[in-house]
Amino acid sequence: MSDQPLSPRPEARNPRGFGDRRGRDLIAERRLIARVSAVYERWGFEPLETPAFEYADALGKFLPDDDRPNAGVFALQDDPEDEGVGSWMALRYDHTAPLARYAAQNWETLPKPFRRYAYGPVWRNEKPGPGRFREFVQCDADTVGSDRPETDAEIIAMAGEGLIAAGLAPDQAVIRVSNRKLFDGLFEAGGVTDPVQRLTALRAVDKFDRLGWEGVSALLGEGRLDESGDYTKGAGLSPRVIGTLEAFLSSATQPGLDRAAVLDAVSGAGDLGAAGAQALAELSAIDRALSAMGVSQDAVRFDPTIVRGLEYYTGAVFEAELLLPTTDDKGRPVRFGSIGGGGRYDDLVARFTGASLPATGFSFGVSRLAAALKAAGRAETDVRGPVVVIVFSDDDMKTYLDAGSELRAAGIAAEVYLGRAGMKAQMKYADRRGAPAVVILGGDEISAGQVTIKDLDAGRALAANLADNAAWKAQRPGQRVVPRADLVSTLREIIDGSSINVPPVS
Amino acid sequence: MSDQPLSPRPEARNPRGFGDRRGRDLIAERRLIARVSAVYERWGFEPLETPAFEYADALGKFLPDDDRPNAGVFALQDDPEDEGVGSWMALRYDHTAPLARYAAQNWETLPKPFRRYAYGPVWRNEKPGPGRFREFVQCDADTVGSDRPETDAEIIAMAGEGLIAAGLAPDQAVIRVSNRKLFDGLFEAGGVTDPVQRLTALRAVDKFDRLGWEGVSALLGEGRLDESGDYTKGAGLSPRVIGTLEAFLSSATQPGLDRAAVLDAVSGAGDLGAAGAQALAELSAIDRALSAMGVSQDAVRFDPTIVRGLEYYTGAVFEAELLLPTTDDKGRPVRFGSIGGGGRYDDLVARFTGASLPATGFSFGVSRLAAALKAAGRAETDVRGPVVVIVFSDDDMKTYLDAGSELRAAGIAAEVYLGRAGMKAQMKYADRRGAPAVVILGGDEISAGQVTIKDLDAGRALAANLADNAAWKAQRPGQRVVPRADLVSTLREIIDGSSINVPPVS
Repeated sequence: MSDQPLSPRPEARNPRGFGDRRGRDLIAERRLIARVSAVYERWGFEPLETPAFEYADALGKFLPDDDRPNAGVFALQDDPEDEGVGSWMALRYDHTAPLARYAAQNWETLPKPFRRYAYGPVWRNEKPGPGRFREFVQCDADTVGSDRPETDAEIIAMAGEGLIAAGLAPDQAVIRVSNRKLFDGLFEAGGVTDPVQRLTALRAVDKFDRLGWEGVSALLGEGRLDESGDYTKGAGLSPRVIGTLEAFLSSATQPGLDRAAVLDAVSGAGDLGAAGAQALAELSAIDRALSAMGVSQDAVRFDPTIVRGLEYYTGAVFEAELLLPTTDDKGRPVRFGSIGGGGRYDDLVARFTGASLPATGFSFGVSRLAAALKAAGRAETDVRGPVVVIVFSDDDMKTYLDAGSELRAAGIAAEVYLGRAGMKAQMKYADRRGAPAVVILGGDEISAGQVTIKDLDAGRALAANLADNAAWKAQRPGQRVVPRADLVSTLREIIDGSSINVPPVS
Repeated sequence: MSDQPLSPRPEARNPRGFGDRRGRDLIAERRLIARVSAVYERWGFEPLETPAFEYADALGKFLPDDDRPNAGVFALQDDPEDEGVGSWMALRYDHTAPLARYAAQNWETLPKPFRRYAYGPVWRNEKPGPGRFREFVQCDADTVGSDRPETDAEIIAMAGEGLIAAGLAPDQAVIRVSNRKLFDGLFEAGGVTDPVQRLTALRAVDKFDRLGWEGVSALLGEGRLDESGDYTKGAGLSPRVIGTLEAFLSSATQPGLDRAAVLDAVSGAGDLGAAGAQALAELSAIDRALSAMGVSQDAVRFDPTIVRGLEYYTGAVFEAELLLPTTDDKGRPVRFGSIGGGGRYDDLVARFTGASLPATGFSFGVSRLAAALKAAGRAETDVRGPVVVIVFSDDDMKTYLDAGSELRAAGIAAEVYLGRAGMKAQMKYADRRGAPAVVILGGDEISAGQVTIKDLDAGRALAANLADNAAWKAQRPGQRVVPRADLVSTLREIIDGSSINVPPVS
């Protein structure tokens, strides 16, 4: 309150690593989520929202990068004076750990198998950096309670349909699939039994795309010195096992192999043990199911180099990749890399119940997918602002408000300018809002029963030289005076005519 | 991983005061938000999402109930070892404080006035109880940067339109409006200058609905002993000022007064000072604007007993109320009370900048509005599950998957059952998912080129005795065998025919 003593003024700033999202970017992001959600619901997946907080013990710690010093979660202790409870709570870092808790807690009463999708923010207490946020939105779909390979196939097919619904063209993305048990079999056959050593080796293979075989080979053995001079300790596998892994990883590198051919090549690459045979049988069933659902060989490929960094995967693993030459801020070509992924995790619910409960799912980062759409030239630019009714005199406010109401009642987004600035500032305001047009009801117009409409889209198209000026102006005048009764129909004409490519405004 | 040493099993449970939301309730809640958002966008309000965390100093502390011992926020200190920064951060407790921070931070580059809407969870570190959560979703719309009363009128009219869009009938809700400056004027005229005393008095008046004049009068004076034996200290106003307040509050209690008549009655109730005169002028302008926008006298009323508990309001205040006799769990009649509210807060951004920036807004709790819709008999029950394709033999999996794909391609939500249970459990599963029908492709059907379709909606209607059995069965058989080629058209007929009132399934 104005008569309160003033404390020192706080600085208006975001916490480090937390961003604001606004207007047209946010609308585009929400459309993306709505379209993907519609796909997931059409596949019979129901929405679930778990709270931001979980008890820390229930959440566990399954972050892929928990070996980095700053990785972690946002945790706080519940008020210990309140009922003697002082448990630690933490903000969720993904949607999978809360799902495992939810499924364990409600298993008896859920329809089984339980298909659910979820979207919403997740939080990671990491060191923020450019493009690296501590809060971001993920969108997941998972099925809990089915060990059938067809469940994995369904998740894969649905994820692919989601990417198309989001806006990617069919040839702009691929989902690569493999199975963790292939490595279980290789490790088993090679006598590698230490789980830490196995995980270190898997994370090395996970870098195949980025480092190539030479780098991965070093990380599988003693270790690797990177360009920056940092040394990463390796998994310490024997040269014999590393040789087997190389044969396995290079078994299916010829381009153009279909899914069945990849399985043939992999099975001939060496001794995959019992687990490997099981993996091949599962992948074969996934292939048959994908084909039954009409999923093409181009949309989903089998690729033995796919492992995924997360510790908890136990079977099939999936990774969606953007298939486009992309460039960085300076125009240099870069790999865009993964736009989502997932896999089967049969032991996550068992943490709570002791009994294994099969589960599989797919997750993508919403900002990452939005960035991919931009890189693919498929981002939407048709997010429009409202029609703006210009305000001249307080005495005519009733007239302005009435026009705004009439437009909205006709389904046209419209607002009356309610600041105190003059005509020029109001025109600038309308332009910045991305208004398709402004409505001018000055004293002259009012007494003549008319209205002046400025077509801002036409102005933008002219400014961008998108149209031949003379012909364009004749067909689409930048400004027209029409009877007041034609307000709605004139604006509808302007808005519907804007499907010509109008450049986005910022 | 299964070969990891097992730590003691965590218990699968929600943190105290945090809930999960699922399936049909969640879908209904999302529809509500989508419909209200569409209204807000039609009025020219753009979406904004600020992060969950704010720096604690930027967030401030403006909770209405900060005098209660357990009231508060969830706060934690940012890692002090990380770059030497150890600032306190807190989760937002509403959408207004983050908006004030955002507006102060970005004012130069924003379109002015800045109209934005926001929805999402807010967090309060309070003692949880039945129906009292520590995380809940709020939906807000605010305009920053206009001191025009028409801005308040627009927010009020839009909020009313939002309630209708959410599903309430026009006669099921009312928005009551007043102006804080009326009390500023009364206090001024009565010589009450202490801001704490003023706020205590306002919070007493805010309880008028619940306590009546007798209770409020005690709280304005020495204090009040409630039925539970708790004593609340009063504002300590003099009997003369209490008398003036009584005359003021009772000035407009005759039913059926229109907005202008209420202003007449209030202005005749006593000395309202300069601030009171200003309030009446603002309310009068709001009335004119509401009428210009076609807002009826029934939808928005002026009511001098409305104050709102929040400290930061400086002018017009609004409160939306459900107009329905409602009952509690035990069938006893209860006042449902407020379903949303807001007001003008011209000094909140000034905390950061030192310069006053006029602002006004409206907020509603999404669960509270959903509960109101339920109480008003306007909750939606038409949230349907997917069609379920029954699975008999692994050998025919291709046939089942193909049928599911065909249905989805035709826009019908459908899934293949992918558990391992038998026919009976699958039927139960389909019923619990709210499936309109199940698709049966047994060996006989497949070899005959046919498909059996069980109409679960018909079964539910029969079970609920909603239809005359014989006539109904003739018109709508519970089960039919049709050519496989008629799968989509038959299901479409069943789903489209379900607009007859089928009871919701749980």
